[in-house]
Amino acid sequence: MYKLAIIGDGYTAAELLRLLTYHKQLRAVKVLSVDFIGKRMDQIYPQLLGFSDLICEPSRIDDIKGACDAAFLALPHGFSVPIVKQLLEWNIKCVDLGADFRLEDTKIYEEYYQLEHEEPELLKKAVYGIPELYREQIKRTDLVANPGCYPTSAIIPLAPLLESGLIEDNIIIDSKSGVTGAGRELRPSSHFCEVNEGISPYGTGVHRHGPEIAQELSRAAGKKLDVTFTPHLLPINRGILSTIYARLKPGVTEKTARTCLEDKYGAEPFVNILAKGMMPNTKWVYGSNMVDIGVYADEDSGRLILGSVLDNLTKGASGQAIQNMNLLLGLEETAGLKIPGLHP
Amino acid sequence: MYKLAIIGDGYTAAELLRLLTYHKQLRAVKVLSVDFIGKRMDQIYPQLLGFSDLICEPSRIDDIKGACDAAFLALPHGFSVPIVKQLLEWNIKCVDLGADFRLEDTKIYEEYYQLEHEEPELLKKAVYGIPELYREQIKRTDLVANPGCYPTSAIIPLAPLLESGLIEDNIIIDSKSGVTGAGRELRPSSHFCEVNEGISPYGTGVHRHGPEIAQELSRAAGKKLDVTFTPHLLPINRGILSTIYARLKPGVTEKTARTCLEDKYGAEPFVNILAKGMMPNTKWVYGSNMVDIGVYADEDSGRLILGSVLDNLTKGASGQAIQNMNLLLGLEETAGLKIPGLHP
Amino acid sequence: MYKLAIIGDGYTAAELLRLLTYHKQLRAVKVLSVDFIGKRMDQIYPQLLGFSDLICEPSRIDDIKGACDAAFLALPHGFSVPIVKQLLEWNIKCVDLGADFRLEDTKIYEEYYQLEHEEPELLKKAVYGIPELYREQIKRTDLVANPGCYPTSAIIPLAPLLESGLIEDNIIIDSKSGVTGAGRELRPSSHFCEVNEGISPYGTGVHRHGPEIAQELSRAAGKKLDVTFTPHLLPINRGILSTIYARLKPGVTEKTARTCLEDKYGAEPFVNILAKGMMPNTKWVYGSNMVDIGVYADEDSGRLILGSVLDNLTKGASGQAIQNMNLLLGLEETAGLKIPGLHP
Amino acid sequence: MYKLAIIGDGYTAAELLRLLTYHKQLRAVKVLSVDFIGKRMDQIYPQLLGFSDLICEPSRIDDIKGACDAAFLALPHGFSVPIVKQLLEWNIKCVDLGADFRLEDTKIYEEYYQLEHEEPELLKKAVYGIPELYREQIKRTDLVANPGCYPTSAIIPLAPLLESGLIEDNIIIDSKSGVTGAGRELRPSSHFCEVNEGISPYGTGVHRHGPEIAQELSRAAGKKLDVTFTPHLLPINRGILSTIYARLKPGVTEKTARTCLEDKYGAEPFVNILAKGMMPNTKWVYGSNMVDIGVYADEDSGRLILGSVLDNLTKGASGQAIQNMNLLLGLEETAGLKIPGLHP
Repeated sequence: MYKLAIIGDGYTAAELLRLLTYHKQLRAVKVLSVDFIGKRMDQIYPQLLGFSDLICEPSRIDDIKGACDAAFLALPHGFSVPIVKQLLEWNIKCVDLGADFRLEDTKIYEEYYQLEHEEPELLKKAVYGIPELYREQIKRTDLVANPGCYPTSAIIPLAPLLESGLIEDNIIIDSKSGVTGAGRELRPSSHFCEVNEGISPYGTGVHRHGPEIAQELSRAAGKKLDVTFTPHLLPINRGILSTIYARLKPGVTEKTARTCLEDKYGAEPFVNILAKGMMPNTKWVYGSNMVDIGVYADEDSGRLILGSVLDNLTKGASGQAIQNMNLLLGLEETAGLKIPGLHP
Repeated sequence: MYKLAIIGDGYTAAELLRLLTYHKQLRAVKVLSVDFIGKRMDQIYPQLLGFSDLICEPSRIDDIKGACDAAFLALPHGFSVPIVKQLLEWNIKCVDLGADFRLEDTKIYEEYYQLEHEEPELLKKAVYGIPELYREQIKRTDLVANPGCYPTSAIIPLAPLLESGLIEDNIIIDSKSGVTGAGRELRPSSHFCEVNEGISPYGTGVHRHGPEIAQELSRAAGKKLDVTFTPHLLPINRGILSTIYARLKPGVTEKTARTCLEDKYGAEPFVNILAKGMMPNTKWVYGSNMVDIGVYADEDSGRLILGSVLDNLTKGASGQAIQNMNLLLGLEETAGLKIPGLHP
Repeated sequence: MYKLAIIGDGYTAAELLRLLTYHKQLRAVKVLSVDFIGKRMDQIYPQLLGFSDLICEPSRIDDIKGACDAAFLALPHGFSVPIVKQLLEWNIKCVDLGADFRLEDTKIYEEYYQLEHEEPELLKKAVYGIPELYREQIKRTDLVANPGCYPTSAIIPLAPLLESGLIEDNIIIDSKSGVTGAGRELRPSSHFCEVNEGISPYGTGVHRHGPEIAQELSRAAGKKLDVTFTPHLLPINRGILSTIYARLKPGVTEKTARTCLEDKYGAEPFVNILAKGMMPNTKWVYGSNMVDIGVYADEDSGRLILGSVLDNLTKGASGQAIQNMNLLLGLEETAGLKIPGLHP
Repeated sequence: MYKLAIIGDGYTAAELLRLLTYHKQLRAVKVLSVDFIGKRMDQIYPQLLGFSDLICEPSRIDDIKGACDAAFLALPHGFSVPIVKQLLEWNIKCVDLGADFRLEDTKIYEEYYQLEHEEPELLKKAVYGIPELYREQIKRTDLVANPGCYPTSAIIPLAPLLESGLIEDNIIIDSKSGVTGAGRELRPSSHFCEVNEGISPYGTGVHRHGPEIAQELSRAAGKKLDVTFTPHLLPINRGILSTIYARLKPGVTEKTARTCLEDKYGAEPFVNILAKGMMPNTKWVYGSNMVDIGVYADEDSGRLILGSVLDNLTKGASGQAIQNMNLLLGLEETAGLKIPGLHP
């Protein structure tokens, strides 16, 4: 049994506790908080009543030393850098659910997050945590940069197609997300009445997940790609759908594209490539760690349309974080994560 | 490992399959259907992709003989009676999620369900399946009448207070339910646009769960009770909240009432009596098998208000059915059911 | 054409502007704000794009003098008292949408609002603004206390039955409200993810609308009544349903009760008494100024159940405010308000 | 006052009645039905209680002769053709809300609707009813093909840019629609529980509005265009957002594009071109006849992103139908339609 710290007290922290209920080898022994010190997590998140007796502790990193084998960091950007540095020195492995170690290029980080990166050296250790793509690297590191929810939904279906050179590089990603993706913070855009019964694009052209997607797709393509990414806010709690538009290279068919994805992911426990004619619904992965992918092509025109869904709190955050932690600690990758979605 | 049949293919059948994913000793080996023969359950309910490979079979009860140890029946009323009769003769234990064995008085059954009861003798075998109240009887029978979702939410908080003689008998139960409670059938009242952004009472004074509640509360009180029950349809998928109004007997305080419930349920794994000042939200039990109960009294006037929530598909149907099946088969009562709610 | 000031910039202010679009004799010429000074209302509320060019002005009451004939106050409690005092001195008629002039008994005001009432004398001028009950008094005053949304939904159906002595005095009001009722302020309880897919009672036994309801029902009954009122928060934008439980006096039938309401409201433009067997849905009055009332009684037991719906922003706030303003200014009571609900 | 027939009884028929409440010169005198003969419209759609006393009549077209000046047809495809033929012979002008007269090419009609077109000659009379584009032609005809909801949302923003030659022809339209767009019919995909808390693409590559969009955009461009159109179903009642991706021609800037749209639509009463930096929310046009359009371009890469919203039942159906009817009858185009959206 490994002892874990959770640093942070938001929705992804609560989701880690939910998922760890199913895990036989990982146990959260500490939750570090700023706002809720002294409160029980099951008071803040009463769905945990009967499932967790953890009490939020002050954010003193020293308390983790000796008490924990590894840590999840679920913090706003900028806060993880010094903590990770310290924890790694104590040989405490880290999965960072925030953005601090996702971008290799500190200039882009600084442009999008308006913050100088304090430890560029650490970036070299960090592995971008999509196990389906970087499993072996993750096993060999002690710092995982857990990906953003939008990027996970876009990179998983696109990376193999780009690696195999099946599609052109003018790619459009139209993503739709539930509101938990924006966290628990109070802002006008998460007020019930401002969200309910509506849909709207936001952050057009400037969303922080844009460069993260571009970085990974460029790596897969072996050249710098220009990607269009537009997120939308949707009146649901959980779920991201990315509808992806690309052009097939001459001679490539829908079948070639589907086969490429099936070859890559057929043995993966958390990816379903849907049968011909099916497009996914975010409901199918509500609460699960799955990614469901539908493939459609109009072969006359060469247009390819992919539909990719995941739950932004599980495969898009805490589920993938546990998947990464399992790899970091040498456990079965699926431990604690074989849970079906809740539908309806 | 016990082998189980699921007779029916609706939401509660799918929910049984979801929950059995977590169960180490029960395995569904058959799903009997009328509408979906030959289809895989994970095609009809794609949240099960990767979690079930069952194919809907024709509803031939003979096929169960020898193949299954026990059966869940998830059928419209009237259909279970002959099937249960047959299965019991083959020593196949049954949990019936429908209404056929809930009402002891066949006259009331016939009035409310417009159907003559074909096997009144079987009613004597049937135990009303709220384990928190009838655990020992359930262990000794081979036929459980799994309760309705509304009744479970009302009976659990009220029965101990009536048994202990703490409240008067003029009880009002104002219940609010998500739409899964009405099943998967297509009707105007479950069309998205007719439900979304609205709330309405329905079945005022004539809902079939009224006599079921009255039967059980009368049993607890030791005398015939007159109960007012009003259900409402709510634009959510899962969840029932019953707000219950009663009068404390002279001298009874909020503390007495809460203590009575704590004494009864303190050791129960699936009931939370909330702390003073808390009222529950259906969100806290979304997908779990829990019942959360809040208690408030205005001691000057003697008014008692209880808030009771559950998920109508789990503790209100399939979760409680598995809890009952565990008892029927001599397994740990909580097996497969220690799963927290999904929030948010 | 009368010139009006709107003091406040929240949802009810925006709703006043929406409704005034339909009004030929009232024109909003000023919006006074604290947070949005200098901003156009159609920037804050883009549904008004093309319908209003008003710019939020600083909250200087002096600016209203000479510029406006009357004013709507849409402010948090406590703020209206000094402003109303000043405006009345300038002969500017006022409809106050807040709570400052609703309760006759300043002790109760002070207990529930934790604030001393600065101008108890003004309370004598204020008329409680339900035109269906107090039409003549409203016409003769210059200060209307616009009622709370919950109280309007409960008082309209109950007052005639109490006045006519048809029901006993142990009354239970179980109310369900959309989230706009809580305003635009950011708080955890109005975060999308905390509301969506759930329902919960709140303010059990202590909600500020309790004494307001008790005051008006007691007036109708001619004696002090003890009323149980429980509000619930619901994942919809607009709408209140109050499900009301009472006991018929001996010999009173459902027909007597319905006839009493039909006699009282048959000629009212904004009240529908539904036909036997119908219960209302909040969707039917979405955006309209209507109250729809369903009546059911179980004559054996004498139980009476009423269902009463309105839109909390229109008949529950801004629509009724305009109805009151029409009366204050001697206009046709229905001017600007004959608009049907939006469904679906 | 013109007397109108409404042929059909679905959501768009009910919406016509709602909107006609605001119209001083048009009056619905007949509703022809198949399913609800003899029922009052305000029984089927209780939001109309107090606003309409129309009773559904049998679908005998002869009854319209002499009784009505013009007709709205709100019928499934295929049904309008013979009725329109008859009505035009009697000089009764028609606005057809269905699909029968939208496609000029009967081969495409037959391919997409699986039905031979019985009156190709009539197609020549029909004008595609987007007044902002075809105002003068509409005034001169007596048959308007009221456009589909998705096409309206896509054609209004794109047509001027194509006419002016500002964009390349590889256009992607990612549309998201509320459920009323699918009508009142009962099907699994409109069951509340199957829609709520989810989003999914549907009809990928084969939706019937695809060729309608292609026809109109090709006309604007002056050459045959290949357009990618993907609709999505969204858990809201009303509203369509089309997020549109195109490439600016070399040298074209965001400002050029916005100016082109402002020049075209600046004086239009039902189109708002949003200020730089704003993208629209479907909530802003909930219940109104407006189209709100946001414009964003990344000038380095030449990518253009448009966001276009409307209410599928008003500007996407019944509101635009009344706008067209106003033109057919020589009335003020905006009569009955200057109503703001309902928000929140």
